[in-house]
Amino acid sequence: MSIIVQKYGGSSVATIERMENVARRIISAKEAGHKVVVVLSARGDTTDDLLKLANEANPNGSNRERDMLLSVGEQISVAMMAMILQRMGHGAKSLTARQAGIMSTSEYSNARITNIDTPRIIMELDAGNIVLIAGFQGETAHGDVATLGRGASDTTAVALAAVLNAKRCEIYTDVEGVYSADPRIVPNALKLPEISYFEMLEMAASGAKVLASRSVGLARKYGVQIVVLSSMAEAEGTVIKEEAKVEGIFVSGVVSNKNIARFSLSGVKDAPGVWFKMFSVMNKKDIAIDFVYQRKLADGTKDISFTVETERLQDTKSVLEENVHVLNFLGYKVNENVAKLSVVSSGMATNPGIPAMMCEALFDAGINIDSLSTSETRISAIIDKKDIDKGTQVVHDKFFGVMP
Amino acid sequence: MSIIVQKYGGSSVATIERMENVARRIISAKEAGHKVVVVLSARGDTTDDLLKLANEANPNGSNRERDMLLSVGEQISVAMMAMILQRMGHGAKSLTARQAGIMSTSEYSNARITNIDTPRIIMELDAGNIVLIAGFQGETAHGDVATLGRGASDTTAVALAAVLNAKRCEIYTDVEGVYSADPRIVPNALKLPEISYFEMLEMAASGAKVLASRSVGLARKYGVQIVVLSSMAEAEGTVIKEEAKVEGIFVSGVVSNKNIARFSLSGVKDAPGVWFKMFSVMNKKDIAIDFVYQRKLADGTKDISFTVETERLQDTKSVLEENVHVLNFLGYKVNENVAKLSVVSSGMATNPGIPAMMCEALFDAGINIDSLSTSETRISAIIDKKDIDKGTQVVHDKFFGVMP
Repeated sequence: MSIIVQKYGGSSVATIERMENVARRIISAKEAGHKVVVVLSARGDTTDDLLKLANEANPNGSNRERDMLLSVGEQISVAMMAMILQRMGHGAKSLTARQAGIMSTSEYSNARITNIDTPRIIMELDAGNIVLIAGFQGETAHGDVATLGRGASDTTAVALAAVLNAKRCEIYTDVEGVYSADPRIVPNALKLPEISYFEMLEMAASGAKVLASRSVGLARKYGVQIVVLSSMAEAEGTVIKEEAKVEGIFVSGVVSNKNIARFSLSGVKDAPGVWFKMFSVMNKKDIAIDFVYQRKLADGTKDISFTVETERLQDTKSVLEENVHVLNFLGYKVNENVAKLSVVSSGMATNPGIPAMMCEALFDAGINIDSLSTSETRISAIIDKKDIDKGTQVVHDKFFGVMP
Repeated sequence: MSIIVQKYGGSSVATIERMENVARRIISAKEAGHKVVVVLSARGDTTDDLLKLANEANPNGSNRERDMLLSVGEQISVAMMAMILQRMGHGAKSLTARQAGIMSTSEYSNARITNIDTPRIIMELDAGNIVLIAGFQGETAHGDVATLGRGASDTTAVALAAVLNAKRCEIYTDVEGVYSADPRIVPNALKLPEISYFEMLEMAASGAKVLASRSVGLARKYGVQIVVLSSMAEAEGTVIKEEAKVEGIFVSGVVSNKNIARFSLSGVKDAPGVWFKMFSVMNKKDIAIDFVYQRKLADGTKDISFTVETERLQDTKSVLEENVHVLNFLGYKVNENVAKLSVVSSGMATNPGIPAMMCEALFDAGINIDSLSTSETRISAIIDKKDIDKGTQVVHDKFFGVMP
């Protein structure tokens, strides 16, 4: 009897009716002959409500206490779902991360899973129970609760699928799968039947929200087959696996990301190691920087610039201000009117025409490219934020054609 | 450096402002040179909100899942309080029952504390932290969460005071101490400066809500000095200890309880052991019966009656219906228009006049006594529910005098 791991996000369990729908899906998987392990996120606005309480108590409270407070959201979801499944006539047990044996580092609010001790899960499955596991959390070596950071319920699900040797890991979300572009921006976007881990990683890194990149990396490492599908509709989803073969499509997707900001530092002293220092101080705060540029001026100083995710804007400012003497610069400016447009393709190396096609599409639409960055599987452009939706549409149509 | 255990109820932590008041009291105790351990209940309506969610999910869900859901209320309280104390400049750590080492039986919804492993608490106290512990819960031997039943945060606090050898256990509530009668019914009721464990137990058993009787029993067993006082006012409270000496007062209190119901069974076969069987079947469901009476009829059958707490009414009906052939009766009736009036005094044995004074007061007020029951420290009367407030007042005035 094979094990299936399913993960449902917060919107899928926001109301009792939606929870009942989810319960029916879980029961279908069980009745199809599987042992079912389900990872749940906090319901609807629960995490926001808890964050509000945390901020009322203390906006600068310790991350340990914040995690203690936030982790109750998932506990509520799993206990309620267990009771709903019991009402529908099925044995069910909810487990906190600790009870499920999910151990983590103690970097509160951004912990990583270190190990999963599965005996309790196996025992409950062998007893015929559906097992509901609180996502987003782990237990530290000191017995404290730590949350795993953004998108972490996906990671919990993939990690469980790996250690349980699950047949597959089903990630249920509010879209029907992975698309060639965000369907809210590009209405004729195609749902991809398959995509490789590598392309999915690039799409996630480019800003696609459908799956947390950490979970994709983990799936790739342990060969876990992920299926992304909708919790609301019956459509087939997208399979994410090592080798995805999709005939006739050489580009996987076009991804836009409006949540970036560009920092420009002026009067930087021209000495060796400025980027090494920059990456070091940013890395300490887990801030990823991208689109790194520098320009040497006549006076011997340099202007340098880079992009960060908008949600790390304040942290980035703090790091710069704390390290002004380490980095040796005079001042900085922030530009939030930028956005990133990326084309992901595992065929980038063998299709040198891809960057050219992208630039052509943007040029035809009168959209100016500020800067470009390329990798083996991705080309990204920084453009004005006001142009990003139009840009996404025209680049998508260049590769996928205009649908009726 | 001595340890103080404080316990605050749900209404004391219902809003941020009240939590801040509580935080200031906690800090005072710390600044007075004590190590402080604080037990909190769930905030305001949180437990009711969680119960609503539980009932939406499944009114008949397993107690294990119900406990899993309900236990988050206290976790929210302690994490928020830790953050508030941090904001006020004090080191603070919140601990779930599990992290605090509070082990319990696995009778979900009504578990009992079996043991407390204190190293984590001691470690946090030694590090200079105020320790906030989630009340109302324990961890079973299987690592599950179990709640401790009604009034259980009081029990958590007293148990902690016992194992930590605390100087005293302060129970903060919305009244200023233990009174000679409920001040909402008897406006001239006196606040008692001291009361013995034994009298407090009798008052709690008679329906006084100020302290859970389980916690008083535990305090008596381990010699923990309890102080009951208000979280809102600065008044001195009531000390509960082994020997309470209060000059001039030989009655501790008058307690009324409207939440009782009388069951009358008819056509009971007159065979030995009927009460033995009755207590056995009731005890299995943890239902306490009181005011037990029987009357033998001419036809050889018996009528029997007893009282139960109203909250166990439905359970009692179920037990009777399931055991109709064990108990051998023809039918039963329930009367909810009854109430219990009790006088508690450790001097009952040496003051035989107490029952007479109580009966005289009720007779003078024209209140009929349905039945009486006496013990070493208590005399209770069943009267009509409509007469209970007036009865409490006149009996109180008989012993304590009419205040201006």
